Amino acid sequence: MTDEKTYDVLIVGLGPAGITAAIYAARKQLQVLMIGDLPGGEVRNSGDIENWPGGGETDGNTLADSFMAHLKLHDKEITQVAGKVVTISKEGANFTTTSAQGDTYASKTVIYAAGRHPRELGVPGEKDFKNLGVTYCATCDAPLFPDKDVVVVGGGNTGAEAVIMLMNIATKIYLLHIEDTLPADPILVSNFKDNDKVEIIYEAATTKIEGETTVTSLSYKDKEGTEQKLDVQGVFVAIGAIPNTDPVKELGVELDKFGAVVADRYGKTSVEGFFAAGDVTDIRDAQIVVAAGHGSSAALSAGDHLSRLGGK
Amino acid sequence: MTDEKTYDVLIVGLGPAGITAAIYAARKQLQVLMIGDLPGGEVRNSGDIENWPGGGETDGNTLADSFMAHLKLHDKEITQVAGKVVTISKEGANFTTTSAQGDTYASKTVIYAAGRHPRELGVPGEKDFKNLGVTYCATCDAPLFPDKDVVVVGGGNTGAEAVIMLMNIATKIYLLHIEDTLPADPILVSNFKDNDKVEIIYEAATTKIEGETTVTSLSYKDKEGTEQKLDVQGVFVAIGAIPNTDPVKELGVELDKFGAVVADRYGKTSVEGFFAAGDVTDIRDAQIVVAAGHGSSAALSAGDHLSRLGGK
Repeated sequence: MTDEKTYDVLIVGLGPAGITAAIYAARKQLQVLMIGDLPGGEVRNSGDIENWPGGGETDGNTLADSFMAHLKLHDKEITQVAGKVVTISKEGANFTTTSAQGDTYASKTVIYAAGRHPRELGVPGEKDFKNLGVTYCATCDAPLFPDKDVVVVGGGNTGAEAVIMLMNIATKIYLLHIEDTLPADPILVSNFKDNDKVEIIYEAATTKIEGETTVTSLSYKDKEGTEQKLDVQGVFVAIGAIPNTDPVKELGVELDKFGAVVADRYGKTSVEGFFAAGDVTDIRDAQIVVAAGHGSSAALSAGDHLSRLGGK
Repeated sequence: MTDEKTYDVLIVGLGPAGITAAIYAARKQLQVLMIGDLPGGEVRNSGDIENWPGGGETDGNTLADSFMAHLKLHDKEITQVAGKVVTISKEGANFTTTSAQGDTYASKTVIYAAGRHPRELGVPGEKDFKNLGVTYCATCDAPLFPDKDVVVVGGGNTGAEAVIMLMNIATKIYLLHIEDTLPADPILVSNFKDNDKVEIIYEAATTKIEGETTVTSLSYKDKEGTEQKLDVQGVFVAIGAIPNTDPVKELGVELDKFGAVVADRYGKTSVEGFFAAGDVTDIRDAQIVVAAGHGSSAALSAGDHLSRLGGK
């Protein structure tokens, strides 16, 4: 299907950056098309959330629902399409965006807020046991491991949050981290550092995952370089994330060495009319409120750009 | 009084930037002192708010209350002091902050999020009739003008919001703008552009405000340079804002030509350990969600700085 309309702004991604951008663009009475496949973005996959200002102690689903509900105030300006974007190209002044379903959409500007996806360990067995004990989303899958022994790989905030979610479910939780200190916020670590069910193993490099129909063990090299084996039924991988920039590779927008879109604080990128915001960019802080602020600025930048074009 | 403690982070300002910074700093288990005199900051003086993501149609008091309530989750880490800061100085690695009451506080870092205050017209009569018909806060004062004729000076979003607040209160509302188009968001302008009570006057330069015990008229030069006089009982000034940077002038932190603290997207300024966030900085977008995101990043920067000092 080809949508014949030329939108003022096409927004890729339904996370905090994309949603905030859409709210701001709609308030400028721009015609907005949003494409995304996860309403609320990675917020949806977060468990407890206590750092959304004014949100107090809330959770990912509640916050994601409030974001999505906000979009409904702007039904007149915002068209939503459920789907994945595969390519974005620029011909003349306009952009053409193609979805996985083969639909194409034309727009004068793009705000790219496609987020990141979890990084894989890249060890033998990981792919074989994906969803058979290996998971990248504790919020989604922690409840599948009652009375099991599990390992969380990665001692950042995502890993620490996974441990917290698993504490009341699993029997034993190993937390493996590659360095000798945990980078997670102390307030998170304080939840489990004295818990008998949790064992933190520092300077551990995962080497392989083994199993039969499902995972039975994870092996790692300890700080002396000796291989150790943990008998576990679940492996929670939390070692960072990779920007979802495959669809913009042909566009030629500047990416940094991690594959993130290089964008300034106002969402401006190396391609005119193509703005980016949130976790898909080279911004340092992958935080909900930071992404939302960035989305707001990107929409204001897109609005300025359209004004200069004389379109709006 | 001298507070003998050396805080990890002293935060100036109780707006979205300061509050978000405090939440993030507390989650890093830093000891935080907050000084401010308006709980929720300028958010408190905003009327309807429809661009706080997930907030839907809310208002300034509700949002400000939710921000302040969030701080209570971190009573252990955050000390709040009601007051105004008059000077901040740096001696060695630490900062000394003095309040208007003469109290002093020591801290290893500062996050300066003191916001802006409304700009004055600078015309004869303005100071004489301040709070006697001349006001800078429509949310605060619009209800004081039932069945009166009023003028709003400034056609940006603040001015447009003032008109909207006054529409159901005042009899006649003049909106004066210095240029030939209104910079306010079209969605705001659409609320009043066809309303008979509202008259928009373009290319009007205010020249004086007159009155007896209270305001009776405002005069302006029209586009032909002819002086015109409006018989009004209220003057709402909405012509921008000035960063609250007087307390940091001695500190020698770099300011831009508008007096705003030059700060990067992560809140870093020209003075080590002194971070700034939100509307007091040279950030382009004076938006609640942008200020909040900036506050988050500034707190993470302060945390990094303290880690490198070895303090935390």
